[in-house]
Amino acid sequence: MFRLDRDSATPLADQIEAQLRALVESGQLPRGARLASIRQLAAELSVSPNTVVLAYDRLAAAGIIDARGTAGYYVHEARGDAPDEAAAVLEAGDIQEPVWLAQQANDQRSGLLLASSGALPPAWMEDGVPAAAVQRALARSTSGMASRCPPQGMPELRERIALLLRGLGVPVDAGRVLTTFGGTHAIDLICRSFLKPGDAVIVEDPGYFLMLGRLKQAGLRVVPVARRHDGIDLEQLAAACREHRPKLAFLQTVLHNPTGWGSTPANLHKVLVLAREHGFLIAEDDVQGHFQTAPATRLAALSGLERVIYYSSFCKALSPALRLGWVAADPALLKPLMREKIYSVLTTPALNELVLLEVLAAGRWRKHLDRLCARLAAARHASLRQLRTAGIAFDHPGECGLFLWGELPAGVDVDELVADAGRNQIVLARGAAFSADHRAADPHIRFNVAACQAPRVADYLRERLQAIVKAREAWGVRSST
Amino acid sequence: MFRLDRDSATPLADQIEAQLRALVESGQLPRGARLASIRQLAAELSVSPNTVVLAYDRLAAAGIIDARGTAGYYVHEARGDAPDEAAAVLEAGDIQEPVWLAQQANDQRSGLLLASSGALPPAWMEDGVPAAAVQRALARSTSGMASRCPPQGMPELRERIALLLRGLGVPVDAGRVLTTFGGTHAIDLICRSFLKPGDAVIVEDPGYFLMLGRLKQAGLRVVPVARRHDGIDLEQLAAACREHRPKLAFLQTVLHNPTGWGSTPANLHKVLVLAREHGFLIAEDDVQGHFQTAPATRLAALSGLERVIYYSSFCKALSPALRLGWVAADPALLKPLMREKIYSVLTTPALNELVLLEVLAAGRWRKHLDRLCARLAAARHASLRQLRTAGIAFDHPGECGLFLWGELPAGVDVDELVADAGRNQIVLARGAAFSADHRAADPHIRFNVAACQAPRVADYLRERLQAIVKAREAWGVRSST
Repeated sequence: MFRLDRDSATPLADQIEAQLRALVESGQLPRGARLASIRQLAAELSVSPNTVVLAYDRLAAAGIIDARGTAGYYVHEARGDAPDEAAAVLEAGDIQEPVWLAQQANDQRSGLLLASSGALPPAWMEDGVPAAAVQRALARSTSGMASRCPPQGMPELRERIALLLRGLGVPVDAGRVLTTFGGTHAIDLICRSFLKPGDAVIVEDPGYFLMLGRLKQAGLRVVPVARRHDGIDLEQLAAACREHRPKLAFLQTVLHNPTGWGSTPANLHKVLVLAREHGFLIAEDDVQGHFQTAPATRLAALSGLERVIYYSSFCKALSPALRLGWVAADPALLKPLMREKIYSVLTTPALNELVLLEVLAAGRWRKHLDRLCARLAAARHASLRQLRTAGIAFDHPGECGLFLWGELPAGVDVDELVADAGRNQIVLARGAAFSADHRAADPHIRFNVAACQAPRVADYLRERLQAIVKAREAWGVRSST
Repeated sequence: MFRLDRDSATPLADQIEAQLRALVESGQLPRGARLASIRQLAAELSVSPNTVVLAYDRLAAAGIIDARGTAGYYVHEARGDAPDEAAAVLEAGDIQEPVWLAQQANDQRSGLLLASSGALPPAWMEDGVPAAAVQRALARSTSGMASRCPPQGMPELRERIALLLRGLGVPVDAGRVLTTFGGTHAIDLICRSFLKPGDAVIVEDPGYFLMLGRLKQAGLRVVPVARRHDGIDLEQLAAACREHRPKLAFLQTVLHNPTGWGSTPANLHKVLVLAREHGFLIAEDDVQGHFQTAPATRLAALSGLERVIYYSSFCKALSPALRLGWVAADPALLKPLMREKIYSVLTTPALNELVLLEVLAAGRWRKHLDRLCARLAAARHASLRQLRTAGIAFDHPGECGLFLWGELPAGVDVDELVADAGRNQIVLARGAAFSADHRAADPHIRFNVAACQAPRVADYLRERLQAIVKAREAWGVRSST
């Protein structure tokens, strides 16, 4: 049934996986059929049992076969009439596309260790929105599940959000707030409202990969400006303004993704001066800001929302299952954003807004956040220590938040390492994914501090980096003889 | 404090409501102040207590006053520091814009009778998603409110949706389904995926106003083709294909909005032949199809989804508070749609998908729909009878669904009538709002059968139309003397 090519560059486990997948898809291995045992197949193909384990595990994770404990492996029996083609919608060729990375980020297949994930582990968020809060929210509303939400968002919820913002020094009332489906939706609405193909847009380099993908797809001229540990590079920004006449700049001032860096008030002040001088708008991304425990200045606070469109989200810290975020802006800027919200999705769901209002009004948010931040601080400490001993370097590792921006030792091929980690069920995001020009060979990796505190990631990296050094030495010896 | 005009056409309750509102807004009745009791005010104004109750109830529903049980009525005390500017975001000048109509449709201020609404009354939908189903959905999920939803939608939910579609004869599996935020989001994703500025798009005339607004805003060439009671006008469609080389046609084949008309299988067959001949895609809107009680053919079923992107929604018939809909299409067409979903909103919320899955899996949907359809049929009968006696004409009034497409008597100024109705708290949608070229003086009004079964709309129209006839006669007499 199998033909293995031992001269091919494709690992044997991959070949076995691909051929089993083809046999299932063509129906030659029918649904519910029992597969050969690991030992049996390994013997038949003269490969190591570990190679077969690897192939079977991946097929099980993809839902193609089921592991039934000691009973062995079986072809998965779909409940519907036809196989699910979800996995087929995005194909292997797309793997470096930003949308695929986003798809992967929301993929909760077990076995995969999402070491670079942009999210907290689900278990950390379970107390954010208790089921009882959902029930209370529905009981308190007049129309329950028949409720409609005004396109701008429920006034009471917007009042609560405005209150949080005033706590950060941003002078807003509920009328300056528009609810959205998280930060991604806010970015989309900003693009649709204020930018047209050919416009120049400043982005931080590195930056949020899905945003970079969205901007390019919209036909915008993306102008990357280096991110420093104290803010965007002001000289580069000034030069970019003169050369490109940008319409807008996307900046993440607090706990910048992927670096985890902040911005000094002085840096932000100069950014505002440049914005006024060159007449561009600023979209300030604060989706990570909840994890900032020390006081930090936002552009929205400094400018009193003049020229600044601020957005944030409850997806990261409270509940991805609600998928709610918001934009705050002056009414003249909020109006086109609201128009685009109506054209794109009509409105956000009343269920989600009612639940969020209930949580905020009950005062759960602050307590939940304090617990999360304490947990993140411990995880950060543990991850940093382990990853350093594994050979990863950290300039300015920062003090809070989800991310560590680590640098691989010189000479290590990032792409090769990321691919190898993937074969070991560890998903790492390369620096290039966060770069506007997909700068090849960027030696950085974004690490998620919650995922990296367990030793599995550091252990893998330590071993792998040592092997690379050894191989290089051996090669050096051979090539010099 | 009050001045009631007993000779005015404005009902006394409306006058009391408006004057109280003005007193609160001007600050003459300060926040937290206690209002006169119902008996007291009724005696003072020499009106029936019921008239005062009506005014107070509407103000309470609008959040302007609070009913505190036996303690009486008080002016509402705002929680925030600043007044809510929500209403100011869209201004009076925008009133004819599609987005404003959408805003209005989601406006649940009481007192306004939304006689042309695109929605069912909230009370009709209260049994669609019981609170217990929400609770069960969360209890059954692994991660509750920490769950994430894959961008394509949860596989189990997509399987359920595919099952519904197969019941309509559309040959799909879960892999061909993508969940969306209702029909509006589906339209947006289709525009983003398949159309670029300057492309020609066929629409039915009349058609869904928000879609028309979206298409124009995207810089598309909108080519309207007349809608007949048995489908789109085929001669006009063929001519439009030759002249404009459309990329795509948006068609609502079943219970077309705003007319309520269907399509014959023969009409649909010829549409598909034209689509193949001229190489355009079809987006088939089936958001009203749930209310179709007799069997009806869809383009998606006839074509086996070849060239057809089908979309529908649970917002209309099950729960606007969930705001979920879906697209079904072949994988090659679904892939760009999914990419745009990720770029626009990343994903739909797990909470909403879990709840919808619970409702569909529990078999509630079909029962709920049967009850709704029976109720709609009775409302349709009552509305049709009353509106006819009021002077509205109906060609082909259709047999099910939410809408009646009525025609005003010749010579009546539609805009003037709609404005006057507005002053009487009855919101009517003019035919022109559903026309791609905002055809002035279109004599049609879209009526919502649930809202028009109560006599208030027909009574108003009867009186008003008679007054117009009389005024015209008087003018005729005067001008001939």
